Amino acid sequence: MGQQPITFLRQVMALCTYPNLLDSPSFPEDAKKRARRILQACGGNSLGSYSASQGVNCIREDVAAYITGGMRRACGPDNIYLTTGASDGISTILKILVSGGGKSRTGVMIPIPQYPLYSAVISELDAIQVNYYLDEENCWALNVNELRRAVQEAKDHCDPKVLCIINPGNPTGQVQSRKCIEDVIHFAWEEKLFLLADEVYQDNVYSPDCRFHSFKKVLYEMGPEYSSNVELASFHSTSKGYMGECGYRGGYMEVINLHPEIKGQLVKLLSVRLCPPVSGQAAMDIVVNPPVAGEESFEQFSREKESVLGNLAKKAKLTEDLFNQVPGIHCNPLQGAMYAFPRIFIPAKAVEAAQAHQMAPDMFYCMKLLEETGICVVPGSGFGQREGTYHFRMTILPPVEKLKTVLQKVKDFHINFLENYA
Amino acid sequence: MGQQPITFLRQVMALCTYPNLLDSPSFPEDAKKRARRILQACGGNSLGSYSASQGVNCIREDVAAYITGGMRRACGPDNIYLTTGASDGISTILKILVSGGGKSRTGVMIPIPQYPLYSAVISELDAIQVNYYLDEENCWALNVNELRRAVQEAKDHCDPKVLCIINPGNPTGQVQSRKCIEDVIHFAWEEKLFLLADEVYQDNVYSPDCRFHSFKKVLYEMGPEYSSNVELASFHSTSKGYMGECGYRGGYMEVINLHPEIKGQLVKLLSVRLCPPVSGQAAMDIVVNPPVAGEESFEQFSREKESVLGNLAKKAKLTEDLFNQVPGIHCNPLQGAMYAFPRIFIPAKAVEAAQAHQMAPDMFYCMKLLEETGICVVPGSGFGQREGTYHFRMTILPPVEKLKTVLQKVKDFHINFLENYA
Repeated sequence: MGQQPITFLRQVMALCTYPNLLDSPSFPEDAKKRARRILQACGGNSLGSYSASQGVNCIREDVAAYITGGMRRACGPDNIYLTTGASDGISTILKILVSGGGKSRTGVMIPIPQYPLYSAVISELDAIQVNYYLDEENCWALNVNELRRAVQEAKDHCDPKVLCIINPGNPTGQVQSRKCIEDVIHFAWEEKLFLLADEVYQDNVYSPDCRFHSFKKVLYEMGPEYSSNVELASFHSTSKGYMGECGYRGGYMEVINLHPEIKGQLVKLLSVRLCPPVSGQAAMDIVVNPPVAGEESFEQFSREKESVLGNLAKKAKLTEDLFNQVPGIHCNPLQGAMYAFPRIFIPAKAVEAAQAHQMAPDMFYCMKLLEETGICVVPGSGFGQREGTYHFRMTILPPVEKLKTVLQKVKDFHINFLENYA
Repeated sequence: MGQQPITFLRQVMALCTYPNLLDSPSFPEDAKKRARRILQACGGNSLGSYSASQGVNCIREDVAAYITGGMRRACGPDNIYLTTGASDGISTILKILVSGGGKSRTGVMIPIPQYPLYSAVISELDAIQVNYYLDEENCWALNVNELRRAVQEAKDHCDPKVLCIINPGNPTGQVQSRKCIEDVIHFAWEEKLFLLADEVYQDNVYSPDCRFHSFKKVLYEMGPEYSSNVELASFHSTSKGYMGECGYRGGYMEVINLHPEIKGQLVKLLSVRLCPPVSGQAAMDIVVNPPVAGEESFEQFSREKESVLGNLAKKAKLTEDLFNQVPGIHCNPLQGAMYAFPRIFIPAKAVEAAQAHQMAPDMFYCMKLLEETGICVVPGSGFGQREGTYHFRMTILPPVEKLKTVLQKVKDFHINFLENYA
């Protein structure tokens, strides 16, 4: 999509990959310093060695320091697990939480709309998917009464043990308020639910009224009754933010208040796959330990970072504004993440035509859009949506000018679609 | 263990990581050519983009060409799946093969001794482990009569569907003869078993009397009755051979004769985790597509490769010879792979002492060795062994002089151990 890699990250990675470059004058000293530190922590000073299954120690220390930043209570590297992207962490911890038997199957609460990794892993693990609906009328906010409804109904047919939160939301782009997070934590404490906080879009917040609050930080600020009891796993990744280094498959999870025996099982499970990619671990290190003021690379790094995030903010606003000009499309503010998830009106005749093709109506809509414009978006039914409502997910990643063209084409298509099936 | 990375591989990786280096005169042209080719096949010409879930297309083409080399029938890139190391491929294909229900649980045949990934994944998947014993008296050869015994006995309590082969063997180091592979393929055909051929040590063959034969090649040479019917998945990795790039988590599997519907499920399962690390995919490309005669880097590459493999061959012989000089240790020839798996005599008194400590006798032995010498080896009970026999696994990776010291220390320890528990 034209987004360029952050130079500093790639410089450190290149130095780690081919340490002969440590003698090259073309690389800045702060990049060399970080590369040397990472290599010293690797077996044989090489990215090619297996690391410990939990990840390279000094990188886990950097992650812990990053999480601790501004918090009253420290985070220890022992609770940090480096992963093969966030997906790997999420599926691994779900595997641990779902197993263990018991009479009824384990319920895992997920938002609707959700990111389909969750439904796929729940299905793989033969657990029960427990839906709670985000409030579209209220900017996709999470309402704790809806969590209560969902958990009560679920108790009839399964044992709800896990509550998954995606903040900022994918595909819905909402950013949760501090109050909302407190309510969710209190609810998890009441119901003894294990909290999974998918926070991979933590650097992607665009609305001036919104701020990212990590579940970990809020949990600690709520006092020892919560911070010593609520079990929480949170996730981050190299794939999002302003780095966008998806291909390196870097990520981490922090797990707190996990029972020591279960922690032992988790480490055992992780060790079967040996270790996460060490190059992805190195990339994760740069995400949590970027150049700081006074360092040689700081200025260029800041410029590149601001450029990526500034552009994303501009595109988020542009997308929201343009969609809301189209009759029959309503788009909530894109407070964060990288997607629009507009609601689309699909006329009755189009619903009939879709049924004749044995397609979900939004799938039918998206296929028509693809055929007529070449634009590929994902139907809301792939993420889940309230019965009778239709949506699609579109990324806001294309460059501004291209995005404008895309949005204009979607607009024209939609107006035309409404006419054709009026 | 002091083994240095292959320069060419790291050069290509550094160029792919930080493409500014493509203008640097310090990198050879053949490395730049490969890096450009890989980058052109990556989204946005970047290792940081997600690839297709099955892997970067041109890398799968290179893998296919590597497999086809010297074979009558071509291999298509569609059957190639790039993986996060071989472990990921093995556990993914086992997941697909074990699921699907049926009245009785799925049996998976594995060699004893085995590499513990297999027992761990079988246990995770709630399948049945069906042991077949390698013939220690015959250099750990695989005997088809033993396969027949194992499958017949297993049919009483499960549905044997999969036969796993490790060649060259881990931990046992044997290299299978062509005749043996033919027998195994015929057996799999008779019993309609899905063959898994773990061939990650294919470049690690040291005995002058042995040659590596891939299951795929032998299968094709056995004619269409076999090559069109026997289902086979084979695995390779960047972690072994002379490259030893474990940390990059690169690997591939080739799957042939898989039913199209099951292939669809496999692709779906893989897509949940998005893609294997693209840096590991690039490393895999260099393993299957190294410099050839006439290319600028060929001479240095060949020198480095021969040095690693020559040293391993020397250390294999040294280890075998030294162990066989020790009373109460017998070591089969290390025909391939990277380990010795000697049989050790443990006196009755030591067995009693182990029982008093609630330890397996070989675990007791290994703990004593660790405590007295600082040398860490893995007890045979971690890999499986015939009742009443004891072994340990030791790598032959340390540099020659260090290895000599290690072996001498093990020898002294063992003689002392026999005396203490006589």
